Amino acid sequence: MSFERVAIVGLGLIGGSIGLAVREHLPGVTTRGYDLDPAVRRRAAERRLADNICETAEEAAADADLVILCVPVGAMGAAARAVLPALKADTVVSDVGSSKQAIGEALSAALPDHAVIPAHPVAGTENSGPDAGFATLFHRRWCIVTPPADAAPEQVTALVEFWQGLGAMVDTMDPQHHDRVLAVTSHIPHLIAYTIVGTASDLEEVTRGEVIKYSAGGFRDFTRIAASDPTMWRDVFLHNRDAVLEMLDRFLTDLAMMREAIRAGDGETMFDLFSRTREIRRSIVEMGQDDARPDFGRKHNGDS
Amino acid sequence: MSFERVAIVGLGLIGGSIGLAVREHLPGVTTRGYDLDPAVRRRAAERRLADNICETAEEAAADADLVILCVPVGAMGAAARAVLPALKADTVVSDVGSSKQAIGEALSAALPDHAVIPAHPVAGTENSGPDAGFATLFHRRWCIVTPPADAAPEQVTALVEFWQGLGAMVDTMDPQHHDRVLAVTSHIPHLIAYTIVGTASDLEEVTRGEVIKYSAGGFRDFTRIAASDPTMWRDVFLHNRDAVLEMLDRFLTDLAMMREAIRAGDGETMFDLFSRTREIRRSIVEMGQDDARPDFGRKHNGDS
Repeated sequence: MSFERVAIVGLGLIGGSIGLAVREHLPGVTTRGYDLDPAVRRRAAERRLADNICETAEEAAADADLVILCVPVGAMGAAARAVLPALKADTVVSDVGSSKQAIGEALSAALPDHAVIPAHPVAGTENSGPDAGFATLFHRRWCIVTPPADAAPEQVTALVEFWQGLGAMVDTMDPQHHDRVLAVTSHIPHLIAYTIVGTASDLEEVTRGEVIKYSAGGFRDFTRIAASDPTMWRDVFLHNRDAVLEMLDRFLTDLAMMREAIRAGDGETMFDLFSRTREIRRSIVEMGQDDARPDFGRKHNGDS
Repeated sequence: MSFERVAIVGLGLIGGSIGLAVREHLPGVTTRGYDLDPAVRRRAAERRLADNICETAEEAAADADLVILCVPVGAMGAAARAVLPALKADTVVSDVGSSKQAIGEALSAALPDHAVIPAHPVAGTENSGPDAGFATLFHRRWCIVTPPADAAPEQVTALVEFWQGLGAMVDTMDPQHHDRVLAVTSHIPHLIAYTIVGTASDLEEVTRGEVIKYSAGGFRDFTRIAASDPTMWRDVFLHNRDAVLEMLDRFLTDLAMMREAIRAGDGETMFDLFSRTREIRRSIVEMGQDDARPDFGRKHNGDS
């Protein structure tokens, strides 16, 4: 089996990119899109983020083989309830959210009689909304599928092949493990970035203008992910609390150790850590998960 | 007055970029370069990082109007003592280090009878060594000059104009203030990045392979600056301890507040912070201090 009619509910960065990627990569597949916000629907129609932009979630989901919910984690249950009346008996419902345990539970509760197979494409930019999406967003990025124990294997395979069709590489894992992995590789980095940008903005001794002017010393890197969508990220932290707190406490322990090394003038402990961390960067670049060019490939010719 | 003969001591990312930038932008100026490491000197000669690559620091500094020390903060005193015998009475000695108070003191102690005007170009990439430099590194980046109270105004002006000639914008400030500003915009971001990359590498529940595969969720951004030169950064933390600890403690207080918000499920506190931080990103891009393209302009077409 494979999906021929796909409904996309939520037309921001991820939903919009799915629609554009389907058109570019899966010519046999048609898409219908819906967004709660009329202004987003209008812009989505202009950009042709889906073949048809519908006025209701039900209309978008009508006849769909696959419904993908691309809304903030906290809105998944409501989005599922909105499409429910339109679902066929064999429609697969999936999503793209960043905390799989909470979403799996919310979707199963809202759709007890339907096939729910959560998924999470680990890809994005700091932009959000209907202008942010593009067709190549998922190229060579990983998508993690977290099928429930009783999922039909052919439906899981179809979802895996759908994401591979958009250019992604796919792994499956259980939702608990996903949530711990993503706490480290995504949620804690965002929390830290948001917090340090907040700290820097609130200082009295150093002005905001100075923070901006001298941000090329490293700070500007953190401002990129701290420009991500606030609603999406609030919901991630509300719905992946335990894994986030567990990983945050590991980080805080390590940071306290580095604080003590600085206080004590212990250069050896610093040098040891600072040498070890280069290796990981090298592996990420080798595995095609980041740009090999220095400075992420930023321009250095004076153009902005 | 202006500098016609410039000596560059230390031919890594910054020293090499100065040499290449002088050749590209200041055709009347000649450069001599030296590095303690013979392998670096050989590579510097191949890349022509300076017009002449010399075998000793003294030889490089002979006849120079301006000597720029481009070595780790902890090596500044030794580098100054090495060039001392070659200095003319009116040679200006400057540097490019990231902690101005400690460097100012070390250089003044080593060179009590010479003009010392410290400076810090806030620019760089994660790469280091003689292959890392390029001529446009300083374009539209800020260079902070921290002249001592008794510096000769015409020498300060000549140094400011030298950096402007390389494409930089120049500010002057006192070294104490510089060290606090850079603690926030550069040192704490590096410390946090090194630490989280260390935390992620040491987990047992999440493998290093998983951290690498799913790093596009945000983590990979931190690995870039955590790939910076370990010696340089150890020295920064050894020599800007007080300002770093002060700013680190502000950050830790804010992070404890966010931890409590997550624990308590306080979405309002999160949303408030996550909304405020977008503004700073926007200003940094508007001020030309970062790439306006999403995701720093990283490629999204599947090429690495």
